[in-house]
Amino acid sequence: MFTLFHHPFCPHSRFIRLIAGEYGLDLKLIEERSWERREAFLLLNAAGTTPVLVDEEQPPIPGAAIIAEYVDEAYGAEMGPKRLMPQTIGERVEVRRLMAWFNEKFFEEVSHPLVTERIYKRFMSEENGGGPPSADVMRAAKANVRYHLAYIGWLAQTRNFLAGDRLTYADLAAAAHLSAIDYLGDVPWSEDDAAKAWYARVKSRPSFRPLLSEWLAGVPASRTYVDLDF
Amino acid sequence: MFTLFHHPFCPHSRFIRLIAGEYGLDLKLIEERSWERREAFLLLNAAGTTPVLVDEEQPPIPGAAIIAEYVDEAYGAEMGPKRLMPQTIGERVEVRRLMAWFNEKFFEEVSHPLVTERIYKRFMSEENGGGPPSADVMRAAKANVRYHLAYIGWLAQTRNFLAGDRLTYADLAAAAHLSAIDYLGDVPWSEDDAAKAWYARVKSRPSFRPLLSEWLAGVPASRTYVDLDF
Repeated sequence: MFTLFHHPFCPHSRFIRLIAGEYGLDLKLIEERSWERREAFLLLNAAGTTPVLVDEEQPPIPGAAIIAEYVDEAYGAEMGPKRLMPQTIGERVEVRRLMAWFNEKFFEEVSHPLVTERIYKRFMSEENGGGPPSADVMRAAKANVRYHLAYIGWLAQTRNFLAGDRLTYADLAAAAHLSAIDYLGDVPWSEDDAAKAWYARVKSRPSFRPLLSEWLAGVPASRTYVDLDF
Repeated sequence: MFTLFHHPFCPHSRFIRLIAGEYGLDLKLIEERSWERREAFLLLNAAGTTPVLVDEEQPPIPGAAIIAEYVDEAYGAEMGPKRLMPQTIGERVEVRRLMAWFNEKFFEEVSHPLVTERIYKRFMSEENGGGPPSADVMRAAKANVRYHLAYIGWLAQTRNFLAGDRLTYADLAAAAHLSAIDYLGDVPWSEDDAAKAWYARVKSRPSFRPLLSEWLAGVPASRTYVDLDF
């Protein structure tokens, strides 16, 4: 039994939920509003960010990339051909490169600003940075998503999945970040058919279903969000 | 033979140089001014950031954390007790947590703003963001360094090295980021004796010598920078 401290719109938390779904790991979810800096949560992760995974056997494991490495080391081998981290050194570099691309670069340039402005700010007190969304921040993030989508499309045309022939952490990281902003209708799918076709394939996996069925009161999902043939 | 695309003040590049020094890996260094977005460099790393390691056997490996994992997987086993990544799953979580703490959080809050304002901006054209340093940005970063130093001190009092009994990637990551801003005189060492004693130990390692002997014309190193008994 695992406990995941997460937020439903935290793209890094979504990434870990997709991994757990693919591996059949049973997650107990605890919603954490990291901006409130709850003291007991800071003891789990001094950095104060979601996600944090608690596996009964181990001290708390903070951060998407660190959780992904942990899950691979603790449970990957028994997954056989379903393993999400490849075993050759060169392939591992490519999976980690793309994980970092989405968990760090896409997060900073696209998913973090959009989710913060459009979701988190609704729940933040004024002193925590709450208030109306910044049009400038959203405009910049929406411009950035276009080159990322083109990059995904280029990878998807070159390879079967983003990092190679098989589904890996790279696909789940990319899809997790995209899904958070797809809920908001902020992905210009019509601009890249290859990216759209790749996302449709990943989104139709059973591991995705829990994400698609969680809606936020007052913020309806975009028209494309739950549609598998968007 | 390895080639490292780096910048002398890029803290992530310094981290990789320290690893190479500890392991006796022979690095050919190529100075890259990543803000110039040189086309041939973008082909090595689409993210456009230093460091990038080229090992003859492999495609280019971008990013400090990814290079550290690669070096461990390719060369760690032969290092025996000098190996910088521990082998139990729990210890690996802690080393990765602290690597991420310094390579991501300390970088964003302290070393990146200070190095950008005080070093990179000297070399940047106006259109690349060059110009005089921002006093506001520097003030915020210098305030942040104090709580990070206290955290290092707390770890160093609790353990022999930052992640446990032995020297690991965690120590080298922390020391790499600190060294870049120590050159600038921006570490308030007098505030934390335990952090200072830990840094003095790491800094006196032979792997550190190349960093201490490189000075930048026009920006003299701080009084404490090369002094092993600062």
